[in-house]
Amino acid sequence: MSAQGDGNVLYAQSGGVSAVINATAAGLIDAVLADGPERKIFAARNGILGALQEELIDIAAEDPAELALLHQTPGGAFGSCRFKLPDADQDERPYRRLREVFRAHGIGHFFYNGGNDSQDTTNKIDAWFRAQGHPLNCIGLPKTVDNDLAGTDNCPGFGSVAKYIAVSVRECALDVASMCATSTKVFILEVMGRHAGWITAAGALARSAPEDAPHLLLFPEVAFDPGDFIARVRSQVERSGYCVVVASEGIRTAEGEFLAAAGGAGDAFGHAQLGGVAPHLAHQVQEAGLKTHWATADYLQRAARHIASGCDVEQACALGRSGWQLARTGASGVMLGIRRLSDAPYRWEVEPVELGSVANLEKCLPENFRSADGYDVTPECLAYLRPLVLGEAAPSYNPETGLPNYARLKCRLAEKKLPDYQP
Amino acid sequence: MSAQGDGNVLYAQSGGVSAVINATAAGLIDAVLADGPERKIFAARNGILGALQEELIDIAAEDPAELALLHQTPGGAFGSCRFKLPDADQDERPYRRLREVFRAHGIGHFFYNGGNDSQDTTNKIDAWFRAQGHPLNCIGLPKTVDNDLAGTDNCPGFGSVAKYIAVSVRECALDVASMCATSTKVFILEVMGRHAGWITAAGALARSAPEDAPHLLLFPEVAFDPGDFIARVRSQVERSGYCVVVASEGIRTAEGEFLAAAGGAGDAFGHAQLGGVAPHLAHQVQEAGLKTHWATADYLQRAARHIASGCDVEQACALGRSGWQLARTGASGVMLGIRRLSDAPYRWEVEPVELGSVANLEKCLPENFRSADGYDVTPECLAYLRPLVLGEAAPSYNPETGLPNYARLKCRLAEKKLPDYQP
Repeated sequence: MSAQGDGNVLYAQSGGVSAVINATAAGLIDAVLADGPERKIFAARNGILGALQEELIDIAAEDPAELALLHQTPGGAFGSCRFKLPDADQDERPYRRLREVFRAHGIGHFFYNGGNDSQDTTNKIDAWFRAQGHPLNCIGLPKTVDNDLAGTDNCPGFGSVAKYIAVSVRECALDVASMCATSTKVFILEVMGRHAGWITAAGALARSAPEDAPHLLLFPEVAFDPGDFIARVRSQVERSGYCVVVASEGIRTAEGEFLAAAGGAGDAFGHAQLGGVAPHLAHQVQEAGLKTHWATADYLQRAARHIASGCDVEQACALGRSGWQLARTGASGVMLGIRRLSDAPYRWEVEPVELGSVANLEKCLPENFRSADGYDVTPECLAYLRPLVLGEAAPSYNPETGLPNYARLKCRLAEKKLPDYQP
Repeated sequence: MSAQGDGNVLYAQSGGVSAVINATAAGLIDAVLADGPERKIFAARNGILGALQEELIDIAAEDPAELALLHQTPGGAFGSCRFKLPDADQDERPYRRLREVFRAHGIGHFFYNGGNDSQDTTNKIDAWFRAQGHPLNCIGLPKTVDNDLAGTDNCPGFGSVAKYIAVSVRECALDVASMCATSTKVFILEVMGRHAGWITAAGALARSAPEDAPHLLLFPEVAFDPGDFIARVRSQVERSGYCVVVASEGIRTAEGEFLAAAGGAGDAFGHAQLGGVAPHLAHQVQEAGLKTHWATADYLQRAARHIASGCDVEQACALGRSGWQLARTGASGVMLGIRRLSDAPYRWEVEPVELGSVANLEKCLPENFRSADGYDVTPECLAYLRPLVLGEAAPSYNPETGLPNYARLKCRLAEKKLPDYQP
C-alpha cells in the first residue's frame, strides 16, 4: 500500500560505501527540499540500525554550505552498516519497531541505498508493510563498487572505482616501465571484487595501444593456475621488459579455495574478509627470480572521490532525484536502476525494477566479456566499460590547504519519541 | 673545468621515479630548445647506463605534441636505473667510456636527475672530468619521493606523494568512519619512506580538526612497540569508534629489525626491498579483536600524477629550467636545490649546492618534527609540510577515454658512433 505523496522521508545507507553514495543522497535530499519546507527529511544513522534505534539525523539542522558539499564527499556521510534483518516469519519484532518509528516521525517514504544484501532488506520491509496495510513507499537505490548488482546495467560507485583503477594502472605501468632495465620488472595491483571481476576488468581501460599494460588480469571467475601464471609473467617480461598484473582479491584455485584470506571471522553476512592476494602473488613471482612491487588498493580505490568518474557522479545523483519523483507517484517495492540505451554515444535512462528480481543476486563478469585464455577482457567488455569512466568530476579544493572540500555534517539526531530498542 | 655555454646537452634520470621527474626534464628541455636549434639535447636511455652504452634518445625526433605532455606525465619517460658507478680509483673504465661517448656526441653539459645515490654518481663524474681537464658542466637535479635528500629544503616528487597520501587518508577515513558501527574499525595505510618518515608525516595533513584521522603515525625513526601500538589503537576505537593508522614501510623493532621485508635480495645498492608492513600490523590488530582493512600504496603513491601538488610540479619544472641557466654560466659540480624563504606565505628560490655536501646523505624527519610520544607530528612539521601540497595541477584528460593524456615518446636513439660497451 502506497503513501502517495504523503509523509516525511527517511533515507539510509547500507553496506560498503563508495565515492558517490553521498551523491545519491544529495540528489534525493535536494529533490525533497525543492518540494517545500513542510516535509521533513531524515537520514538514519548507520543504515537500518538507526531506523531501528530511532537515531534519525535531521537534515534541516545541517549547515546548507556543508550540505552543498555532500555530492562531492566520499564515504557514507550518515554512517552505514552491515546488518541483516531476520525474515519476518522468524522474528517480526524489528518490523514492528520500524513501524513504530515510522509512525512516530511521520515517515511515508523510505529509501535504502545499498547493494545486493541491502536490497534484500528493502524488499523484506516493503513486503511486511504491504502485508500489514501500512502505507509506505519503500524504494531501493543502488550502490556497490563491485558492479555485481542485478537489475541495473551498471551500479553507481563502480564507474569511479573503474576510473581510479584505470588511471592508477596507467600511472604505475609508466613507473615500472622506467625501472625495469635494472630493477623492478613486475607490478601487481590487488583490487576489490570478491566474486565478480568487474573492477579487475576495468584495469584494461588503462591501455591506449594493444601492447600496453596491464598484461594479465586475474579474475575471480577464472580458476588460478600458479604455473601458467608464472610462465605468462616470464614471457611478458621477456617480450617487453616488464609485466603489469591486476588481480582480484577473490581469485581462487581450481579447488575453489580463495588464494588469500585475511584470517578475519567474516562479516555479518558470513562473507570472508579478503586481502593479501598481491603479496602472495608477488612472493611467487620473486621466487621465479623477477623483482616485483605490489600494491593493495583496498579503501583507496572505493573512497577516491578525487578521481571520480563524471558519468558515475551524474548517475548517482540522478538516481537519488528520480527516487523522489517516483516515490511521489506512490511507487513502492522497486529499486531504481540504470538502463543503457546505447554504447557510443553513451545514452542511458533511469528505470524502476522489482526489488524481488534484485535482492541477493550477484552479477558476475559474463563469459563473453572474458578472453578465451581467461587473462583479458573482450572488445564487448571494453565497449561496456568505456562510457562508465568518461568525464571528470573533481571536487573543489581548499586553496589554504590544497585538500578537497569534503562535507562535515553535524548529524544531529531528531528528538526521540519512543523507548530504547536493542536490535 | 667548465664547458661554459658550449656543447650539446645530455640529461638522464636515475633511481626510483616520481610523478614529477618528467616535469624537471620538460623544464630543462624547453629551456635548451628555446635557446635555438643548433644545440642538440639528448636523454640517456635508462640513466647513466644509456650514457655508458651510447643509447642517446634524440629529443629532436620526438613529436612536439607528445613532448608538450611530458610535464604532466608520471614515471621516467626516458627510463631510469639503479646502477652504482665504481670509484674511479678502483675502476676508471666507465669514466673513460663516458668521455668517449661525450666526445663522440659533443656533450658539454650533463644533467643527472636523481636522489642521494645518484648525486654520488654525479659527483664522481664531475670530479673525474675535472681531474682530467675535460670540459663538462656536470649538474645534479634533485628527485626523490622520500624527501630525504640533503642540500634542499624539500625534494621534487615528495610534494605530490604528500598530497596523494593526505587526500587518500582523508578519503579512507571517511570510509572507515561510516563502516565502524558494525564492521571495519581500523584502517592501516602503508606508505613509502624506507628510513625517513616524511611521507608518513604527510598523512597528518589529512586533518582539518585535531580529532580527525589519522590517529597514529608509525615513523621509521621511532622504534615500534607492538603492545603500546595495540593499546593505542584500542583506546582510539573506544574514543571515536574507529582508528586510522599511517605506517612507514620501514618501521623497525627496538632491535633495529625491519618489521616486514619482502624477501627480495635487495637492489644494486644493497637496500632491502620492503613491503608488507600493513598486513603484518593488520594481523596484530585483528588478533586483538578489531576488524581491520589495510592498503599498501607502493607505486600508486609515487606515480599518482593525477593528484600531483601544483607547488611540486612548479618546483620540479623550475629546477630543470634553472639547471640550464646555470650550466650556461659554466657551473659544474653542483646540485640545484630549493631554499625556503618563508612558510606562510610560502616563498622559495632555487639555489645551487655543492654535490659533495649532498651525495649519499639521508635527511631523516628531525626530532622536533615528531611529537613526544612518537606517534604524531609537531606544529613545526605541519608548518613545513603545508605549502608543499598547495595547488592542483591536474593533467589534461582525453574526452574520448576519460583518461589522462600522458606522453608517448618514440625514444628514438641517435646513431651510434662507437663500438659496443658492456657496463
